[in-house]
Amino acid sequence: MQDVIIGCDHRGFELKEQIKEFLRTQKILFIDTGVKSSDRPNDNETPPLVTVTREVAETVQSAKNFCGILICSNGIGISIAANRFKGIRAALCKSPDVARAAREHNDANVLCLGNDVDFAIVQKIITTFMRTKFIPEARYKKRVELFDKIT
Amino acid sequence: MQDVIIGCDHRGFELKEQIKEFLRTQKILFIDTGVKSSDRPNDNETPPLVTVTREVAETVQSAKNFCGILICSNGIGISIAANRFKGIRAALCKSPDVARAAREHNDANVLCLGNDVDFAIVQKIITTFMRTKFIPEARYKKRVELFDKIT
Repeated sequence: MQDVIIGCDHRGFELKEQIKEFLRTQKILFIDTGVKSSDRPNDNETPPLVTVTREVAETVQSAKNFCGILICSNGIGISIAANRFKGIRAALCKSPDVARAAREHNDANVLCLGNDVDFAIVQKIITTFMRTKFIPEARYKKRVELFDKIT
Repeated sequence: MQDVIIGCDHRGFELKEQIKEFLRTQKILFIDTGVKSSDRPNDNETPPLVTVTREVAETVQSAKNFCGILICSNGIGISIAANRFKGIRAALCKSPDVARAAREHNDANVLCLGNDVDFAIVQKIITTFMRTKFIPEARYKKRVELFDKIT
């Protein structure tokens, strides 16, 4: 099982704390990149959604033993931001089935979550995402390689 | 209302055809970039998911009167691929609520759909996505600008 680097914006903070507890019970090691509260950030600072996503993405880019988990209100902002990074394949998953396909067909390495999913489902999504392996068939390998050559 | 450029891979073909009928009833103009059947592509060719996504993304990048709709089996592959393009904010939406937030907070310009959503919901997602306007508050504007400066 990989280690996890986990981050969120203020709207994802409560779910992040719940997920950390879940990871502890599963004996999965993790790094928490913040944020550290559900307080809305100051409009003058760089949005934490951006800084946290960069930290998670750069760690996953450089350390193959890590996968990422990112959380915001509905998962859209973090999935746009994380997929800007070459080598990052960020999958917004609302169900275990999508998490499985994201791993099997797209070799997803960052799981994006919203706080709009029931926590019992979130736990199944995380477990499925972390236990499912990429299917290294030619068609999937080719697709994954092309993600980083598309622009 | 914007015009639409719509594309899919073979797993999204049937939903694309349904959506085209829906767009006609709504008198929304669209361009269809393919694919043209639900046949699985040859493993030797460039995956249509990649070529179709590029065509949709480049059109939306260059023509402000267009938004994009991309469809694959569950929306993950196209959302990874489309968000590689600067200026593209591709949102995988499984509900009208997420579609609204994607527009209001992230100024999403490409709607990603999977064939795993009931068509009645898909219609509501499309209508919500196309009718909802971005909220031009400082915090959202800053976030959207930073998406293209994050790497």
